[in-house]
Amino acid sequence: MYRAAVWGASGMAGGEVLRILAQHPSVEVACAVSNSKKGQFVWQVHPHLRANFSNLAFCNTDEGLSTGADIALLAVPHGTAVPIIESCLKKNMKVVDLSADVRLSSSKDYEAWYGHSHPNPELLSKAIYGLPELHRDDIRDAVLVSGVGCNASCCILGLYPLALMGLIEEARIEVRVGSSEAGASPTIGSHHPYRSRTLRVFEPFRHRHLAEILQELSLKESAVTLTMSAVEIVRGVQMLSHIRLSQKMSERDIWQIYRKAYAGNPFLQLCPAKPAHLRFPDPKLVTGCNNAMTGFALHEDGRRMLVVTAIDNLMKGAAGTAVQAANLMLGLVETEGLTMMPVYPV
Amino acid sequence: MYRAAVWGASGMAGGEVLRILAQHPSVEVACAVSNSKKGQFVWQVHPHLRANFSNLAFCNTDEGLSTGADIALLAVPHGTAVPIIESCLKKNMKVVDLSADVRLSSSKDYEAWYGHSHPNPELLSKAIYGLPELHRDDIRDAVLVSGVGCNASCCILGLYPLALMGLIEEARIEVRVGSSEAGASPTIGSHHPYRSRTLRVFEPFRHRHLAEILQELSLKESAVTLTMSAVEIVRGVQMLSHIRLSQKMSERDIWQIYRKAYAGNPFLQLCPAKPAHLRFPDPKLVTGCNNAMTGFALHEDGRRMLVVTAIDNLMKGAAGTAVQAANLMLGLVETEGLTMMPVYPV
Amino acid sequence: MYRAAVWGASGMAGGEVLRILAQHPSVEVACAVSNSKKGQFVWQVHPHLRANFSNLAFCNTDEGLSTGADIALLAVPHGTAVPIIESCLKKNMKVVDLSADVRLSSSKDYEAWYGHSHPNPELLSKAIYGLPELHRDDIRDAVLVSGVGCNASCCILGLYPLALMGLIEEARIEVRVGSSEAGASPTIGSHHPYRSRTLRVFEPFRHRHLAEILQELSLKESAVTLTMSAVEIVRGVQMLSHIRLSQKMSERDIWQIYRKAYAGNPFLQLCPAKPAHLRFPDPKLVTGCNNAMTGFALHEDGRRMLVVTAIDNLMKGAAGTAVQAANLMLGLVETEGLTMMPVYPV
Amino acid sequence: MYRAAVWGASGMAGGEVLRILAQHPSVEVACAVSNSKKGQFVWQVHPHLRANFSNLAFCNTDEGLSTGADIALLAVPHGTAVPIIESCLKKNMKVVDLSADVRLSSSKDYEAWYGHSHPNPELLSKAIYGLPELHRDDIRDAVLVSGVGCNASCCILGLYPLALMGLIEEARIEVRVGSSEAGASPTIGSHHPYRSRTLRVFEPFRHRHLAEILQELSLKESAVTLTMSAVEIVRGVQMLSHIRLSQKMSERDIWQIYRKAYAGNPFLQLCPAKPAHLRFPDPKLVTGCNNAMTGFALHEDGRRMLVVTAIDNLMKGAAGTAVQAANLMLGLVETEGLTMMPVYPV
Repeated sequence: MYRAAVWGASGMAGGEVLRILAQHPSVEVACAVSNSKKGQFVWQVHPHLRANFSNLAFCNTDEGLSTGADIALLAVPHGTAVPIIESCLKKNMKVVDLSADVRLSSSKDYEAWYGHSHPNPELLSKAIYGLPELHRDDIRDAVLVSGVGCNASCCILGLYPLALMGLIEEARIEVRVGSSEAGASPTIGSHHPYRSRTLRVFEPFRHRHLAEILQELSLKESAVTLTMSAVEIVRGVQMLSHIRLSQKMSERDIWQIYRKAYAGNPFLQLCPAKPAHLRFPDPKLVTGCNNAMTGFALHEDGRRMLVVTAIDNLMKGAAGTAVQAANLMLGLVETEGLTMMPVYPV
Repeated sequence: MYRAAVWGASGMAGGEVLRILAQHPSVEVACAVSNSKKGQFVWQVHPHLRANFSNLAFCNTDEGLSTGADIALLAVPHGTAVPIIESCLKKNMKVVDLSADVRLSSSKDYEAWYGHSHPNPELLSKAIYGLPELHRDDIRDAVLVSGVGCNASCCILGLYPLALMGLIEEARIEVRVGSSEAGASPTIGSHHPYRSRTLRVFEPFRHRHLAEILQELSLKESAVTLTMSAVEIVRGVQMLSHIRLSQKMSERDIWQIYRKAYAGNPFLQLCPAKPAHLRFPDPKLVTGCNNAMTGFALHEDGRRMLVVTAIDNLMKGAAGTAVQAANLMLGLVETEGLTMMPVYPV
Repeated sequence: MYRAAVWGASGMAGGEVLRILAQHPSVEVACAVSNSKKGQFVWQVHPHLRANFSNLAFCNTDEGLSTGADIALLAVPHGTAVPIIESCLKKNMKVVDLSADVRLSSSKDYEAWYGHSHPNPELLSKAIYGLPELHRDDIRDAVLVSGVGCNASCCILGLYPLALMGLIEEARIEVRVGSSEAGASPTIGSHHPYRSRTLRVFEPFRHRHLAEILQELSLKESAVTLTMSAVEIVRGVQMLSHIRLSQKMSERDIWQIYRKAYAGNPFLQLCPAKPAHLRFPDPKLVTGCNNAMTGFALHEDGRRMLVVTAIDNLMKGAAGTAVQAANLMLGLVETEGLTMMPVYPV
Repeated sequence: MYRAAVWGASGMAGGEVLRILAQHPSVEVACAVSNSKKGQFVWQVHPHLRANFSNLAFCNTDEGLSTGADIALLAVPHGTAVPIIESCLKKNMKVVDLSADVRLSSSKDYEAWYGHSHPNPELLSKAIYGLPELHRDDIRDAVLVSGVGCNASCCILGLYPLALMGLIEEARIEVRVGSSEAGASPTIGSHHPYRSRTLRVFEPFRHRHLAEILQELSLKESAVTLTMSAVEIVRGVQMLSHIRLSQKMSERDIWQIYRKAYAGNPFLQLCPAKPAHLRFPDPKLVTGCNNAMTGFALHEDGRRMLVVTAIDNLMKGAAGTAVQAANLMLGLVETEGLTMMPVYPV
């Protein structure tokens, strides 16, 4: 049994890591680190976990570092992960960092998108972007893996088959997100009377996750815009990408490209072509599970295309992918602990 | 044209007062007081009011006191209204105070329910409880009227016909509330991921509004419990009262009692006996309007009874009733500015 | 007082026409036609209208034709309006037809988009597309005016300032719709467990309303795609249009174009440039009112642009615009009966 | 590996049975019977099951009877189960019938509550009420077990500790239900515009499930009323029971009674006394899992009590309890296949 230390365990992604590990056959929770909640029981913050962690209390960073865990999963706020990463690596723990701190491999990109220079650029060159569907082998050998942006992973998983073939001439990407994406801290934007049933466009063209998308799909920023909307769901991210293909394609071609790219990836699913109402995925269909579903339509002109991808932002968009990467780093089967089925309808 | 000064204008009830006054035929907004938002345009906080108040900015209390308004409507937090009331009365403004500060007529009751002695008990004896359905004539003559608790007004309006007849032997009251009831400030309880679709029982037997219910219905606390639940709506309060009648009644008797009590009250509506699905009111049917709807069922034993009442908490439960009271205090027709229809379905 | 006959009065748009006319200062309801509900009280289907129409019952078409109304508003299913239009015109009633039957001016277009030849093409050449913002003068003189598609009107109102200037090289339009758009009849798609919180992409590139958009904006189909999604709201339509401008523009230019085009249109509102969270309109801000709100962003490249427009589909997208057109046809002030404010938050 | 035949597999409870069995370690799906959907793939109706049942198609009753399954789970409409039960028993299948057809042990009660005489009263005397928490040993030995009413099971599980002690003098039970309770067929009541955010009281005093509650708790109808409300959730049932105890009790007594009664029941959980906001269970905390959570408060008078219980209606209220019973009938560990964790927040 491997032992995992979870930082940021009182947050929403941290809670989801705990939910997964509670039934993981080969990894157990060594400690749940939350400096602000130290001493409280985990179930006081995550009441749904009370049956599984009836006595586990949050500990602080020092205690977390001394647990002798095999791996650390960091679900801490952006900008706070680097010192924890450094400490964990010194203790010979492997690290999956769900924050944005080591997602970009170029320190120049980091500075451009995050507005300040990176405190430890060496980590950037060492870290692997933790999407097993793109970097499975590198993750197996890594000691430091970044988690993925929930919006970014949704977009990347939906578009990489096209990007690999150099087919994306232009992408106008729409992403719709649920309220759990913003984490566990209340704000005026998450206040129920205002957030309920909102259709709030909060980024017209750019979002920090675009940096990850460009990096992973090898696209230029001039070819891509990313529009973000907050919608009335709690869990879930849905991408709609309006693509201009660089060459005319047939529907059969596109099916082949996706089937080939998705083969061997246990969590990637293509929607059926028929019936029509199942052609495009709804995040409702992946609630609570680690699947990413993708569907598409090709315009009759053979150049315009719509790709739709849906994930659970806390699972495939955060904790699920992080545990999937951790499995690979620990030499386990990629799907261990991640086979829970979606709850539908909910 | 009368002129009204609105305190607490940046809050949710304050915004609703402004929404009503924006189209009031006989009362206009003299100023919108918000010490914390002073200088900001009203529409920056209440974007739905931009077409009506394109240039109105929030002012502070001193400015509010010097506007020479005829009447002040105070939608300020509980415990902060008394000094404003005192200042307004000195300026010869009439006052409707939507906070809980002068709702109870007994300073002893105030202390028992609010945990501290009242800062100016004289105001309590001067203030009229501002429910026109119960105190219409007194309100006409008053210079100080309290607003109503949203839950309390829902319960009182549903039960006063029975209470007047001395029929309530025991009442087990359930109240379900929407998220706008808690105001404009975000909390962990109002954070969308947790508040969305909740069924949160937050008071098993008592709630401060019970004090108003007991006072207005002349009931003893031993006969009444009040259970509060937060549910997935933004606007709306619904009361379900399980009553044990003090004597066996027929359905015809109950209809007569309610018809008689509700006669002459323009905002009180009885639900039809048929069809069955319209017998009990849903707050959906009063969204945005000042109506209170009541329906009931009598058990075949003639002693057990269910009374259901629905209001829009921001309208009949707060701003609507406050303007209704202000109309009476200013010698206007009670319904002026309050005839907006419900928006349904929404 | 003018008298209006309402067909399809038991439907959702029909109910909204009744809600508006209930408080219209110059038009009253002559009759509410619903052949299927004949004899039932209007409030049995529209319980929110009980206080206003306590005794009005649905009548059938023959009764409707004999009321001697000045104007008929037809909120009947697509494909069923033509014979009613013919009968009403014979009776010298003016007609606003909210169905899609006379929206397209070309019978060829009608056949292409609706799959069968039009039963009375002469009506198509006679009917005016009933969007006052584009055809105010023609509507004033018309005896037959079509209503607007809710999605179409949202898109047209958001884009016509650009289209008038010939600036739209390409438009990829996203439309998000609430569940009231599909009317009052339950289907598997509107079944709450499946419809609740859905993000259902149901048209990737085309929708019948696109025909209206192309006609009114004088655009070619090759330049426009229309993607439709059903989302978790009841009322509301929101358009996101990703535009490629035919020439490089400055933000100041765009503001001028919109300000000029929207001037004199009482229901069109531009969102403020700041604060950022109010730049793009949310349908939440127009619930229950006849406003259309538009906001935009111009990419720093001066060619890519995002336009967002929000309306209440039952108001500006159907009944509100229909009454607005009827006002013009009857020689009334355009805004009569349509000044109700939005209910927010809800 | 045992083999289960699932009737009513295209319904909502049937889909949940399939979801559970998809990952059951000791029971597999032999066939999915749906006479109306015969030939369609299971995933066309239950798209969330596509990864698990990519090729399984619905079959008809004859095919279902000839699969040689060990056990049949019937999730068919009320009133249609009896002939299927008879056929399955003849084939030596054990049967769990989720419909209401064999829930009541007395044919007289059946007639009283369902309005017609039972077609095969012998089955009533043979069938065991399938709530393992009350009838574990009898279920182990049974060949015919009834499923439970979702509302009934929620109420019974919350109240049986008190009932066993004879403490319930009077119970006024409130039950709030989500939209999935009514099954997969759309109705006007489930139509999203009307069902969304409703607070619809649809039974003031009685509901058929009351028959089960009275039977299982040995209570008289004169002591119990059951008020039903539909609320804005998809999954979930919550009971609020206002109890008058037959004798004065202390809080310590009540804790002991519940702890003792719940001991040894793996799916029953008591809420913690503190913090206050976790004292009463929200169905949000059991989404997708088989747990039933109960919390309570005792009034300071020692006689009035509030008991709140929450379950997922499709799991503990239907499919979960049915599989739990099936496990016992097959000699398996009760919790097999039912250990999935709740998804929270969602």
